[in-house]
Amino acid sequence: MKFFSFWRSLASFRVRIALNLKKLPAEIVFVDIDADAHRSDEYRRINPQMALPALVEDDGTVLFQSVAILEYLEEKYPAPPILPADPKGRARVRALALMVACEGHPLLTPRVRRYLDRELNLRDEQQTAWRRHWVIETLTALEGHLAGSKQTGKFCHGDAPTMADICMVGHCTQAGTLQMSLDRWPTAKRIFDTAMALPEFSRAHPLAQPDTPEAMRPKAG
Amino acid sequence: MKFFSFWRSLASFRVRIALNLKKLPAEIVFVDIDADAHRSDEYRRINPQMALPALVEDDGTVLFQSVAILEYLEEKYPAPPILPADPKGRARVRALALMVACEGHPLLTPRVRRYLDRELNLRDEQQTAWRRHWVIETLTALEGHLAGSKQTGKFCHGDAPTMADICMVGHCTQAGTLQMSLDRWPTAKRIFDTAMALPEFSRAHPLAQPDTPEAMRPKAG
Repeated sequence: MKFFSFWRSLASFRVRIALNLKKLPAEIVFVDIDADAHRSDEYRRINPQMALPALVEDDGTVLFQSVAILEYLEEKYPAPPILPADPKGRARVRALALMVACEGHPLLTPRVRRYLDRELNLRDEQQTAWRRHWVIETLTALEGHLAGSKQTGKFCHGDAPTMADICMVGHCTQAGTLQMSLDRWPTAKRIFDTAMALPEFSRAHPLAQPDTPEAMRPKAG
Repeated sequence: MKFFSFWRSLASFRVRIALNLKKLPAEIVFVDIDADAHRSDEYRRINPQMALPALVEDDGTVLFQSVAILEYLEEKYPAPPILPADPKGRARVRALALMVACEGHPLLTPRVRRYLDRELNLRDEQQTAWRRHWVIETLTALEGHLAGSKQTGKFCHGDAPTMADICMVGHCTQAGTLQMSLDRWPTAKRIFDTAMALPEFSRAHPLAQPDTPEAMRPKAG
């Protein structure tokens, strides 16, 4: 498999975690969005939508959209599972994952930021307010579901990581980038800390990738 | 099953189509978003996120997030299928569906419109330009995938409707609401016309619901 990734992409972050959990080797191809490499003819042939990530199977099949890639990996390489076994549990996990993937995250992508910047001429503080607003809304909605459910365990659903955790950690990471404390969402914070303590999650972190710029890496000590 | 629906909600539209295709009887509860009924204590107990739609199973299990509901219906009531049988085909269908659900649609929801209106004070023409921009971007990306693939048939994937068509028709309907012609996306247009000719799709249309305001209904003749 070839995995087309960009360090900062939170959708790439999701797929990196799933590849780590399932111990799947993939050749990683770094696509530098900041240098517009996703708009190159080469990448456009792989994904005409010019969006990241993409996963290319050995027979050449191109997989795109991070949540569809997670579902594919789960079907093709079921162990360890990232969805529970029962349909209602699976529906809950998917719904929690999609609260991030279909509601929170889409408002924070580079293409939206570009529109706010170029078409609406928003100032930096308005851009930050926009991003904070949607991070808050999504984490508050997630906390509402997680805190009130007996199905929440060490992770979003029971005691093993699922697609819900995979999507949620990206949103919590985004909160950190915006220098927002997670304290007001105690269940989400607890699960985020638990998940990020796993090497499969921490190795996938945007700031720990081979293509992460040196200046962005956390300083040792 | 109880299905909490609102006529104009494009996420409700998706679930209505799936219920029709699978011939599942559901008691429909109309939640009037325009009257803020989704913020009532009653609905909040069902979905603390106060978002539509929600499906409540006979044992009281609440299902939320339209795409998670589609996946649940597919697992629980597999005939007729709305996903193909092979993992790669399933991945393609899910990716096409998520191009709408995770990219196009989230930028067009009432909560985003409210933010553009109240926080950013966008004028009507700026709001319309915003909506057109994301409809164009998503339909162009879909057309790029659909027109170039041998897997595209009468529908987005082969000759029977799938989750991809279910999500795409909502976006095409949105284009219609914005008085945009679909002619520039000929494959998407052809599939939209084919799908909407099926009674399972046409009966689910936002303008054909029991709670559709009289003034919004298409005039006969």
